[in-house]
Amino acid sequence: MNTDELVELGQQLRVDSVRAAAEAGSGHPTSSMSAADLMAVLLAHHFRYDFEDPEHPGNDRFVLSKGHASPLLYSAYKAAGAIDDAELLTFRKLGSRLEGHPTPQRLPWVETATGSLGQGLPIGVGIALAGKRLDHADYRVWVLCGDSELAEGSIWEAAEHAGYEHLDNLTVILDVNRLGQRGPTRHGHDLDAYARRFRAFDWHTVEIDGHDVDAVDRAYGEAVSTKGQPTAIIARTLKGKGVKATEDREGLHGKPVKDADEAIEELGGVRGIRVHVHPPDSTRSLHAVGNGSLELPRWDKGEQVATRDAYGQALAALGTARGDVVALDGEVGDSTRSEFFAKEHPDRYFECYIAEQQMVAAAVGMARRGWVPYASTFAAFLTRAYDFVRMASISGSGINLNGSHAGVSIGQDGPSQMGLEDLAMLRAVHGSTVLYPCDANQTAGLVAEMADLDGIRYLRTSRGESRVIYGPEEEFPVGGSKVLRSSGADRLTIVAAGVTLHEALAAADALGRDGVAVRVVDLYSVKPVDRDTLRRAAEETGCLLTVEDHREEGGLGDAVLDAFLDGRPVPRLVRLAVRTMPGSASPAEQLHAAGIDAASIAASARLLVEEAVVP
Amino acid sequence: MNTDELVELGQQLRVDSVRAAAEAGSGHPTSSMSAADLMAVLLAHHFRYDFEDPEHPGNDRFVLSKGHASPLLYSAYKAAGAIDDAELLTFRKLGSRLEGHPTPQRLPWVETATGSLGQGLPIGVGIALAGKRLDHADYRVWVLCGDSELAEGSIWEAAEHAGYEHLDNLTVILDVNRLGQRGPTRHGHDLDAYARRFRAFDWHTVEIDGHDVDAVDRAYGEAVSTKGQPTAIIARTLKGKGVKATEDREGLHGKPVKDADEAIEELGGVRGIRVHVHPPDSTRSLHAVGNGSLELPRWDKGEQVATRDAYGQALAALGTARGDVVALDGEVGDSTRSEFFAKEHPDRYFECYIAEQQMVAAAVGMARRGWVPYASTFAAFLTRAYDFVRMASISGSGINLNGSHAGVSIGQDGPSQMGLEDLAMLRAVHGSTVLYPCDANQTAGLVAEMADLDGIRYLRTSRGESRVIYGPEEEFPVGGSKVLRSSGADRLTIVAAGVTLHEALAAADALGRDGVAVRVVDLYSVKPVDRDTLRRAAEETGCLLTVEDHREEGGLGDAVLDAFLDGRPVPRLVRLAVRTMPGSASPAEQLHAAGIDAASIAASARLLVEEAVVP
Repeated sequence: MNTDELVELGQQLRVDSVRAAAEAGSGHPTSSMSAADLMAVLLAHHFRYDFEDPEHPGNDRFVLSKGHASPLLYSAYKAAGAIDDAELLTFRKLGSRLEGHPTPQRLPWVETATGSLGQGLPIGVGIALAGKRLDHADYRVWVLCGDSELAEGSIWEAAEHAGYEHLDNLTVILDVNRLGQRGPTRHGHDLDAYARRFRAFDWHTVEIDGHDVDAVDRAYGEAVSTKGQPTAIIARTLKGKGVKATEDREGLHGKPVKDADEAIEELGGVRGIRVHVHPPDSTRSLHAVGNGSLELPRWDKGEQVATRDAYGQALAALGTARGDVVALDGEVGDSTRSEFFAKEHPDRYFECYIAEQQMVAAAVGMARRGWVPYASTFAAFLTRAYDFVRMASISGSGINLNGSHAGVSIGQDGPSQMGLEDLAMLRAVHGSTVLYPCDANQTAGLVAEMADLDGIRYLRTSRGESRVIYGPEEEFPVGGSKVLRSSGADRLTIVAAGVTLHEALAAADALGRDGVAVRVVDLYSVKPVDRDTLRRAAEETGCLLTVEDHREEGGLGDAVLDAFLDGRPVPRLVRLAVRTMPGSASPAEQLHAAGIDAASIAASARLLVEEAVVP
Repeated sequence: MNTDELVELGQQLRVDSVRAAAEAGSGHPTSSMSAADLMAVLLAHHFRYDFEDPEHPGNDRFVLSKGHASPLLYSAYKAAGAIDDAELLTFRKLGSRLEGHPTPQRLPWVETATGSLGQGLPIGVGIALAGKRLDHADYRVWVLCGDSELAEGSIWEAAEHAGYEHLDNLTVILDVNRLGQRGPTRHGHDLDAYARRFRAFDWHTVEIDGHDVDAVDRAYGEAVSTKGQPTAIIARTLKGKGVKATEDREGLHGKPVKDADEAIEELGGVRGIRVHVHPPDSTRSLHAVGNGSLELPRWDKGEQVATRDAYGQALAALGTARGDVVALDGEVGDSTRSEFFAKEHPDRYFECYIAEQQMVAAAVGMARRGWVPYASTFAAFLTRAYDFVRMASISGSGINLNGSHAGVSIGQDGPSQMGLEDLAMLRAVHGSTVLYPCDANQTAGLVAEMADLDGIRYLRTSRGESRVIYGPEEEFPVGGSKVLRSSGADRLTIVAAGVTLHEALAAADALGRDGVAVRVVDLYSVKPVDRDTLRRAAEETGCLLTVEDHREEGGLGDAVLDAFLDGRPVPRLVRLAVRTMPGSASPAEQLHAAGIDAASIAASARLLVEEAVVP
């Protein structure tokens, strides 16, 4: 396309953005209008993509980090012939694929759900990393960012990651339109403020007028030809560009243009330009190949092994069997034991340093390219990345998360290092799986099994050693449980997992010596929960005692209740959990102080079988 | 102190760090040894502090962002005479004030709990902001950071905030010891890599040898005399400095020095140097003064008002009455309505732009200085700051958080903007209060009441308008509830809050017309929960139906169960919550699709009174 044609295409994208938002009665046309020329030139001249084959391994990848500019994205899809005008006008309506913020669950051309700002670039970095280091393909990743979202620290985690990894297949396009939602941004139109920051993180930068299509064209060309560095194109634009009533004006964020018909006329009316988007050349295939034969590590009953050790060893074995498994860590691989994977599969191991948001984002990007990522850090520090996990679930992303050092039982390091909210946090994520093994063989089995589940999968591991209680042949289906003590005389059921499972067994033995028979259930699958076993236990023993090394809200105790929330009779219940703020102390002292050790369990059980209330 | 004395003091801090960790059998002496000279010079020459009066308003503030270097901090306390040698050797033991990572809950000289890396600087920025813009005092804030933690995006949110606000009362001391936990950092001893980044964010930088006490001394002097910019002192150091077996060696992070006695000898043995720390000069008093008379906004029953509007108006009124109330927002003040406060009290309003971690961190810093912060953003985006909220609870910080745009009822914007995990996330925080009002007068009452509670307080607000159902005189004690429909013939109890409370009332009316009497409880206090009312409802009506605009895990439904988890008989229960992934649709369509509208509630209630199971 020549200059005039590119200008016309930009105007068409503006017109269609205005029309879509007007029809919806909501949306972000002004945020779309600022970036319309940037999008027009990208689509017409630089983006290599086959809209008929979004899975094509050679396709470039486009990420709309400023997800609220979805009218622009959908207008571009229309210009590319991927959707028609009638569909464009379904924007934001019930059942439409064209949501307020784009998601890959609805549209095959969307790489990741956006709408929580500052996430598109980090995930784009993950895709670009996959391109360089895993796919070894020559696709490019293009990320369109707003200027407001550059205040998010996650942007600078991503900038650091991309600069350090020399991701010259990555281009970020900054739509510096000077206006955020509420008003002016910190740096307004000071392009150099942004350029300085990106250069400091070892990026190549180009500053342009984002409405000069020739300058935009040259900048994209410069980005493509820049080697050894990612490029940031920093474009001065005007929000609401092209319509006097909206151009560079405050107070119009997230609002349809008031007089849409007039605005469309001012923009030159509706056009029907159809862009031929260049298809990709490359057809390189994906994925290293594993040996196909999974040989998980095995431990004998009675051995003392930390579940984090079992995790690391199982992950390494899984990586040997499957070429599509990759691992990431937040600079604590010697603690989470993901280092075992790193040693055996260095090409598929990604050190993300202490940047948990970027670690999860990179995992999401890699999963989008068909890889099966396992991202590990302390359970406590996954809280840092909660928004990324939440958004990953909206994307339908299949990622595995491992949180080690769960609970007070880590001991002396104190509460800052104790994962005590992780079960609550991850259970609340839509479609998630939450697993909490108590021994090494169980851990290994679950590590392998989680690889092929849908959605977000979380495995909680422990710092200290615990006794191996299951043989290596035992199976642990997700959604199942293990009944470890059971008799016809059981007067209550203790439900536990992980560290507290061993305390529960000790309590059951002590109670048994006193003539009180109790059932013990190992609830290794916290979500989904084994409703049948819990219901049977309730019917047969009348009451349930749950014990967890976690806050009382949202964890194992609440998970057990999922089995009884449909109106059926509910058993008597007691929940033991961490109710105080721990300090430094030994693991055993911690469990005792929190009231979740064997002695505390036995004491509560005695009260329960006497039909008393537990204080 | 002269050069030799400073060197000796540095060695003493090393020796005491080695001794404390050796006695504990755990801890981070090598991370302490790298920063010992930096700490020695600060303590002896530049830090203005009265250890006998930690509340002194003129005290400088020191934040140990690399919280694992606690042995160094405690050794400094000993050198300053704040603790004795016997207490130093209680490090990491049960009951000791000297935890693995320092917390203000245990020690009066600690400004904030650290141990989750990348948080000390952001909170230090909050304290420095309070010094400049609220206290108008001339104390300085000194933050000691590790190099590893510079990978956290929160560091760059803080750098941006401090640079933009010209916080020349803030100095960050970077202990660039080149080694993280697992191994080398990204940039090793490349001081310029860090200096470049901080300069790009408008900081003054000084690069030094961190073991040259005279250079350190000069650098601190330069920081103090630098105007209009915060200063980053970037110090090249060696991890484990001073002991051949540990100096600059990998694999020794978080481990006591192996042969402690030999190491102590190599460091010149135990010393008894006592440092006279200069007390502060300033005695300026804190806090603007309000008019002391709280006049909350009032609405008449039947009016249609969004609870977010009521929040903004009530917050503005609270700010008029109380001079200690401040507000922060993540660049969505026009949506959360914190802009109402901003208009009336611009001096106490802090625009944090789209940086939720920094917003919460700044609030924590201000709360430490005695201010009462209200930090607002979309409920969905508070997930971004979960680790900061978690750590704030470890600090015992008293901050108010507001999450607006809760639930599917926001409508068209789609799931990325919907707070659906916020109740679970905030209930799991130790000692938190979680409030979810359904009308304007209730919101206003709770906004005022939460100001004086302990710990983390969370208020959830809604985007759309809802009917005012309470008069302006009604009181809403935290931990209470309101029974809105009740009769002796009630056959079940519907428990709801916020948006679903109105749906519950409509369902109750419909059921009433069919001759089915039901009780309705407004559970505005989600944590703590009104156990007595719920237990009475259970006894009198036999079953409970909970309804919430939130994921089914960890929210209102689970909160209700808190009343029954002590072994008492449990009523039949049904929980209605958001179980699917919403798309774009109108608010009414969303509530219906999620099965939490009046029709869905009534349908479930009918099944329940027939003693059926709800599918």
